[in-house]
Amino acid sequence: MLTRDGCEERRRRLWRHVPESYSWVLIGDPRHVQYFCNFRVNPISFSAEQRPLLLLTRDGQSALMADNFTTRTTKETVFADHEIVVPWYTHRKSVTNRDHALVVALNDIRALWDGEPGLTDTDSSSTTSRDRPRCGLVESEGVSQLVAAAVADYSEPVFEDHAARARTLGDVIRYLRRTKLPDEADILRRCMRACEAGHAAAFDCVRAGVSEFEVYLHVQRAAEAAAGVPCVVYGDFRANNPAEPKAGGLPTDYQMQPGDLFILDYSVVIHGYRSDFTNTLAVGDPSDDQVRLFEACHDALQASEAVLGNGVSCRKVYDTASEVLEDRGFGKLAHHAGHGLGLEHPEPPTLVPESTDRLMTGDVVTLEPGSYQSGIGGVRLEHNYLISDAGAERLSQHDLRLTAGG
Amino acid sequence: MLTRDGCEERRRRLWRHVPESYSWVLIGDPRHVQYFCNFRVNPISFSAEQRPLLLLTRDGQSALMADNFTTRTTKETVFADHEIVVPWYTHRKSVTNRDHALVVALNDIRALWDGEPGLTDTDSSSTTSRDRPRCGLVESEGVSQLVAAAVADYSEPVFEDHAARARTLGDVIRYLRRTKLPDEADILRRCMRACEAGHAAAFDCVRAGVSEFEVYLHVQRAAEAAAGVPCVVYGDFRANNPAEPKAGGLPTDYQMQPGDLFILDYSVVIHGYRSDFTNTLAVGDPSDDQVRLFEACHDALQASEAVLGNGVSCRKVYDTASEVLEDRGFGKLAHHAGHGLGLEHPEPPTLVPESTDRLMTGDVVTLEPGSYQSGIGGVRLEHNYLISDAGAERLSQHDLRLTAGG
Repeated sequence: MLTRDGCEERRRRLWRHVPESYSWVLIGDPRHVQYFCNFRVNPISFSAEQRPLLLLTRDGQSALMADNFTTRTTKETVFADHEIVVPWYTHRKSVTNRDHALVVALNDIRALWDGEPGLTDTDSSSTTSRDRPRCGLVESEGVSQLVAAAVADYSEPVFEDHAARARTLGDVIRYLRRTKLPDEADILRRCMRACEAGHAAAFDCVRAGVSEFEVYLHVQRAAEAAAGVPCVVYGDFRANNPAEPKAGGLPTDYQMQPGDLFILDYSVVIHGYRSDFTNTLAVGDPSDDQVRLFEACHDALQASEAVLGNGVSCRKVYDTASEVLEDRGFGKLAHHAGHGLGLEHPEPPTLVPESTDRLMTGDVVTLEPGSYQSGIGGVRLEHNYLISDAGAERLSQHDLRLTAGG
Repeated sequence: MLTRDGCEERRRRLWRHVPESYSWVLIGDPRHVQYFCNFRVNPISFSAEQRPLLLLTRDGQSALMADNFTTRTTKETVFADHEIVVPWYTHRKSVTNRDHALVVALNDIRALWDGEPGLTDTDSSSTTSRDRPRCGLVESEGVSQLVAAAVADYSEPVFEDHAARARTLGDVIRYLRRTKLPDEADILRRCMRACEAGHAAAFDCVRAGVSEFEVYLHVQRAAEAAAGVPCVVYGDFRANNPAEPKAGGLPTDYQMQPGDLFILDYSVVIHGYRSDFTNTLAVGDPSDDQVRLFEACHDALQASEAVLGNGVSCRKVYDTASEVLEDRGFGKLAHHAGHGLGLEHPEPPTLVPESTDRLMTGDVVTLEPGSYQSGIGGVRLEHNYLISDAGAERLSQHDLRLTAGG
């Protein structure tokens, strides 16, 4: 999963973007806790909705805080100097409000944030909190009011630096997240392999008489089997047809009919990171128009892939894909040409007509031209890429084909 | 899913426990937003980790707030008078920090919380905020510092009422959650049916040479197929043996061997609610000691089931189960006898030796006596119950059997 080197490099990047007046940060968004120390509450566990806290200091200390049932949900190595595990539930006594455990944890490491020099050093002659007021920065989007109140006298929720484009710690971290380090790319590659297995399996089951939900079960199983671990599989598992060419979301019990097109656009999430790629399958023999539409999307994908690279305007990538569709008589691309991929969906950069983003080395993006034509049906095709100075590495290797043989 | 009647009754119960000086509450824990208005971000979706907000007023108004990609993840009916959907991502422009959408949403319904009398009435002669300061109560555990700051001049994070056992809105809601209303029980019954299907399927695949992970894939598929919708399936999918009788957590690639026992203790989560029940299966023919251990756990379960009912001390339930195990020579029950079930795992009441809880009508609890004996192996058995004045209704109907035939 995430590595010690990766977590340490992400922290160094963080401190370069936090104004120098702050000597510690308190992080509460579970994605961001993971990003900096590799602790993630497994969503396929009994603690899916509980939240941890991470305190980082500019001088290199780190403390993970959570209740004992939340920390139990992962076996991954945590890269933190201190792990403050509050014994919320001991199998002996009645429990109190679980969310309040984080306040207890914060008090346990008070010396890290109230201005005392060391965790255990309580020498009264040392620097007091009054000498260094408000030297902390709290991730105000991810830390609860209750937790923030515990450190309120020592911290700020927003920057005072008006020149910065970022005003909150969340802004900074979301910016940093665009650039995937090698350990993140490695997890993304695992997601890709699992997602490819699901796409390959789809050719076995997309046919007349099978329900969308059955396709989901089949694809999910193939993807998880390839991943080798329980993981979240989500996306669009929907059939469309010439009369209703646009459909998205989770599967229904609709049984496919000849002439339908099935857009399989799904993600495999491993340790928070996700693949996101698409193929469109024909139910029975595709019509000539469906083949033409598929080829147009395929060419749009290839054309936009060819322009990817560090510094390229995201608007240009959109325009490139859209123009191919328009040239073929299918009109402009009616949704994004793609978006960033990582701990969230979607995330920057956005490959859209009025985007002000530019691709950067380290971005992982998806390209997904699609077209939904009354009288024909809907087609979408998608690959994932890691942006580099030289161009882009295609991360997904699934087959783009309307039928198993075609 | 949750019904309008149920949501309205839960709101009435809430207001009976909120001090009268407060005329509105702001809720941010996703479980609690769902509890009062039926909006849940599907964890099997692209927005799994984004958060909504719910504002409720004592005079009966309600407003759900979220960004447009978060609201798109569910097709369930939302029971709120106002749905404030912030167009965070439009497929046209670059995005800003998604978490900040909630602050925008709050400003859109400012009249509901700043003392103005109506949503659109901006008549300057009406009551101003200065006439009704701090009439709101914020769920300080679930609302971010950023969001809380937006309403800070008009709200409090904790009660001033020192006589109340609860001090925060989270305390109140967690107390209310113990009593399941009929719509919640209906969802729990759906979870039970799906979980039973997985237990039945386990008899087909627990045998020598099969891996724990393969059992997981098989059980998950059977449970989801029975549920008819994608859902989260988590729990213990682990084999143990006489040398190592205790194992828990997600499955590994370990291939089972004759003499092992497989503890299948898992949950199916539908719309946030979950079943949680267990069977223990023998790999090959069980030994006489394994059969004796199984029977002891079975008798402990039946004995503790017989004492369930409104007003019963949770310590007594624990003692009842533990004494059966002790009488059979297997020592005291080394973990809880069970716990509450609902939107979280575990939740009150706790059926433990020093519990101060008493069962209440409307509690949904699990009983799960287990024993882990060196030289024999580990066994755990579990059923789920709805507590009533008369006793308890058993909600789970799976077979407790060591083998398909036994």
